[in-house]
Amino acid sequence: MLSSVKRILIGRPLKSTALGDQKLNILKALAILSSDALSSVAYGTEQILIVLSTIGAVAYWYSIPIAVGVLFLLAALIISYRQIIFSYPHGGGAYVVSKENLGVNAGLIAGGSLLVDYILTVAVSVSAGTDAITSAIPQLHPYTVPIACVLVVMITILNLRGLTESATILAYPVYLFVFALFILIGVGIYNIMTGNVSHTFYHPALGTPVEGISLFLLLRAFASGCSALTGVEAISNAIPNFKDPAPKNAAKTLILMGSLLAILFSGITFLAYYYGIGPKADETVVSQIARETFGRNYLYFFVQGTTAVILVLAANTGFSAFPLLAFNLAKDKYMPRMFAIRGDRLGYSNGIVALGVASILLIIAFHGKTEHLIPLYAVGVFIPFTLSQTGMIIRWVRKKQGGWLAKLSANLIGAIITLTVLLIFFITKFTQVWFVFIFLPLIVIMFHRINKHYEAVGEQLRIHPESPAIPIEGNVIIVPVAGFTKVVENSINYAKSLTDQIFAVYVSFDREDEKRFAEKWEKWQPDVRLVTLQSHYRSVLQPLSKFIDTVEHKASENNYRVTVLIPQFITKKSWHNILHNQSSLLIRTYLIFKKKVIVATLPYHFKK
Amino acid sequence: MLSSVKRILIGRPLKSTALGDQKLNILKALAILSSDALSSVAYGTEQILIVLSTIGAVAYWYSIPIAVGVLFLLAALIISYRQIIFSYPHGGGAYVVSKENLGVNAGLIAGGSLLVDYILTVAVSVSAGTDAITSAIPQLHPYTVPIACVLVVMITILNLRGLTESATILAYPVYLFVFALFILIGVGIYNIMTGNVSHTFYHPALGTPVEGISLFLLLRAFASGCSALTGVEAISNAIPNFKDPAPKNAAKTLILMGSLLAILFSGITFLAYYYGIGPKADETVVSQIARETFGRNYLYFFVQGTTAVILVLAANTGFSAFPLLAFNLAKDKYMPRMFAIRGDRLGYSNGIVALGVASILLIIAFHGKTEHLIPLYAVGVFIPFTLSQTGMIIRWVRKKQGGWLAKLSANLIGAIITLTVLLIFFITKFTQVWFVFIFLPLIVIMFHRINKHYEAVGEQLRIHPESPAIPIEGNVIIVPVAGFTKVVENSINYAKSLTDQIFAVYVSFDREDEKRFAEKWEKWQPDVRLVTLQSHYRSVLQPLSKFIDTVEHKASENNYRVTVLIPQFITKKSWHNILHNQSSLLIRTYLIFKKKVIVATLPYHFKK
Repeated sequence: MLSSVKRILIGRPLKSTALGDQKLNILKALAILSSDALSSVAYGTEQILIVLSTIGAVAYWYSIPIAVGVLFLLAALIISYRQIIFSYPHGGGAYVVSKENLGVNAGLIAGGSLLVDYILTVAVSVSAGTDAITSAIPQLHPYTVPIACVLVVMITILNLRGLTESATILAYPVYLFVFALFILIGVGIYNIMTGNVSHTFYHPALGTPVEGISLFLLLRAFASGCSALTGVEAISNAIPNFKDPAPKNAAKTLILMGSLLAILFSGITFLAYYYGIGPKADETVVSQIARETFGRNYLYFFVQGTTAVILVLAANTGFSAFPLLAFNLAKDKYMPRMFAIRGDRLGYSNGIVALGVASILLIIAFHGKTEHLIPLYAVGVFIPFTLSQTGMIIRWVRKKQGGWLAKLSANLIGAIITLTVLLIFFITKFTQVWFVFIFLPLIVIMFHRINKHYEAVGEQLRIHPESPAIPIEGNVIIVPVAGFTKVVENSINYAKSLTDQIFAVYVSFDREDEKRFAEKWEKWQPDVRLVTLQSHYRSVLQPLSKFIDTVEHKASENNYRVTVLIPQFITKKSWHNILHNQSSLLIRTYLIFKKKVIVATLPYHFKK
Repeated sequence: MLSSVKRILIGRPLKSTALGDQKLNILKALAILSSDALSSVAYGTEQILIVLSTIGAVAYWYSIPIAVGVLFLLAALIISYRQIIFSYPHGGGAYVVSKENLGVNAGLIAGGSLLVDYILTVAVSVSAGTDAITSAIPQLHPYTVPIACVLVVMITILNLRGLTESATILAYPVYLFVFALFILIGVGIYNIMTGNVSHTFYHPALGTPVEGISLFLLLRAFASGCSALTGVEAISNAIPNFKDPAPKNAAKTLILMGSLLAILFSGITFLAYYYGIGPKADETVVSQIARETFGRNYLYFFVQGTTAVILVLAANTGFSAFPLLAFNLAKDKYMPRMFAIRGDRLGYSNGIVALGVASILLIIAFHGKTEHLIPLYAVGVFIPFTLSQTGMIIRWVRKKQGGWLAKLSANLIGAIITLTVLLIFFITKFTQVWFVFIFLPLIVIMFHRINKHYEAVGEQLRIHPESPAIPIEGNVIIVPVAGFTKVVENSINYAKSLTDQIFAVYVSFDREDEKRFAEKWEKWQPDVRLVTLQSHYRSVLQPLSKFIDTVEHKASENNYRVTVLIPQFITKKSWHNILHNQSSLLIRTYLIFKKKVIVATLPYHFKK
């Protein structure tokens, strides 16, 4: 039943050899990996204006130079990540780059913050998308949390189906969103140029002096605007998902994405400036621009609708990147091994499911209001940004390949800017991001403890040919018996076929019964030793466990192995199981985990 | 952790020999077994007046003759159950009496309706008690369901601690309630006799002609009044819980309970009649009487408080009776065997827990408003009443002991009255009780299916000395291997110590790896046959399972047994478990339940 539900939702398993078919071409990769970055356009400009609005509308013209600064940073990041793609064609992004060039701990810090960040991506994006939906259909407002959870579950299922299939579904809305914003920006600029505008707008000329403005405030506005850059690193993490030649295709995709992001962000910021738009509590900046340009007609709803959809799909970037990063960490033994296994559809299912569950928990914990996680989320992005830029600097200095100085300068500029942004975040928004100083060390410690365990296990499992295992001299088999039945007969016969050192053990609750049983046993199986144990507390496990300890102690002295034989009824119909005390299951689990004995389970299949 | 919580809540385990100490003396038994019956006083009179009020206040005087009828029925039931106690000193009540004298199906109908009835007792009583609490403290009203559930959990825990201890806790409120009602009735009658009443009351004289009255209506009022008799059978079910001489003590307790019930019921009914009290939507009859007698002073709140507490404790009767009845049914193989096992504190824990869970589900399903279950509940009581009376009639006719005619007439009268009440219920309240005709047959069918399974199992397990089991010729051991580690070395050595027919099985995901592994194996364990299997879908289980089938098929032809040896990592700290794919657990479970092979688990304990 369960497995057929799984089939319907996820599809049939794929052969390992089908892996090549699942790889992405540029157009699909752009759709699947850039929704996070592109969707940032929906709030990037607004974040800048929110900070500037503390001074007043006269300060809005600063959004233009700030946007230029953000675009400059974007260019630096794109150039820098393009270099990373070619230097690390097997992917891994910030984690691999930092680890190789700056040491293990830097890598783990980058990896840990990215892992947490992908969870935040999913929670924040889906919540924002849900808000967009419930703003459009206010009746749905009480169901924000369930709707967000259902959306996460849907995205999880799409990802479990496998990358290409999800990409086909996801490609349309991403391109529709880009198309919608192109129309919006195009029509807006055309109207302005032809003077075809309904009324004149108030927009102070660039350079208008503003009272009360400070460098601190401008930097803070810049830092806020940098939230538009979250998601840029996704492509460098996902190079192995690209069709061959993977690095080249990835680099092309990165440039395409950067260009789209730059055009959309510039256009939106310019229109906001020209229209004299400021942030409103109940309407987004993009919505205001669309309303000014089109009025509330179908084009307005087209822009709003695609914006809502792309916000939800931005979560998908997390689903592409998280499992791959978890795979890389698991491969290096810093995360549980299960994240390194491909599922039925060749995706890293465990990573996908873990991300889905974690983000649903986050959505529930914050009642779908994850907006105040955004600063934390931006910090989580800029830490690995800074680390990987720094790592690249070290790399160029070490390798000194042709043209390394130009490449070094690109990364150096990138590193300085991202570090500055990071510092601005910590200085201006400490109350919202201090939590990073707690959880990042905790995650790094956890990584190390996991690693330590795996190393210890590897050491313990290693065979040392010079000291071979002590040979086994013989076997003792303990058979707990409860009556005179075919099951007991089976068990005893099986034990006899393996060894002649057999103890049949009977646990009785009163002396009468004990004596009766022993007499009957003597007649039935005179050649098998019976041990009877008294239980005062009606527990079978306790006296049995004590007896096993005694036998095991003696046996190990003589290099004998002890096997406990436990029968298990297998019922014909599953409801019959509740009619049999599952004590054998209990005893089995206890003995396996607590004792140094082999536990053999002898199934007895009922025929009806 | 879990087990220490259990210790704190339930107490240390008790020795089987401590069973005698847990038995009840008369005073404790009265408290523990009669709260259900005595609490009926809180609503019995009211049920009569509700029916009479459809005619008008002039009809209220009929409550007196109807109460006399109910008292007569009470007397008949007490006499009859006293006879049952002495005839069946080992308890079992309606189930045992009906089964022995009327056949298995009658017994199962009685047993089934009582089982359901005890669940209803708990749900209805606790809900009513919660209503009393939330009426007193209206702020708690929104939390009715959680409060009721917490109360059920508390009663469950008290019962898991063991009978005597719960009885000590329960004795006080029951006697306080009796004391409170004695004061109420005493003061009320004293005031009436001394003429010390604030004003004159309207109460039509007995015999006043009433227009529109009908026999049907009077019978219906009588049937409703009979709800005051629920819980009378509890003592006859619980005889084994009494101190020796158990039957004599039980009989004394029964008479005591009957007398108390008669006094309280008569007193309340008389005062209600004298004060001219009728049913009100927002105040109970008992509350009205207490208010008339005392005013709203501390004595009024004393009566109301003890009433609320005893309603909650009435649920405890269900907790005394249900596990014993379930034990009797399980002993006869009509219910799962687990209900026949005594827990740590010598109570039948599984029955106690099952009852608690079932009644909580009922409370949640009905949102704590279980009042309309009361008719169903009364029917569920009168079915076993009637069956056990009828059973006693058959018994007297069969045995014809000294004085049997007098005893027979007592039971005959009882049977006729209870049957009449039952018929009145079915005729006048069919819409509320038709469900009985669905669930009783279903329960009886379920009993029979369980019994059939146990009989079939017994037959399959029986040893037939004339056809002994076919001797085992030898053993094949299959060892799935995943690498060259100490665990594999251990497994192979263990297998070698038992047989020389060993297959090491390696599942590989690609040809390269397969070849490499086979070569390395050849060097390491040249004397152990290696079988390599290809898995295209990255599943270890599927190819392994197919291979095991092949081996098992061949082996069983030659009377060989097949054992599959599966290693299990035992980690030092429990959190380490998530670092190891629990695939061995999965494989083990699958093989045990799906294949006819012995599954031996070889633990490998990590030292760090």
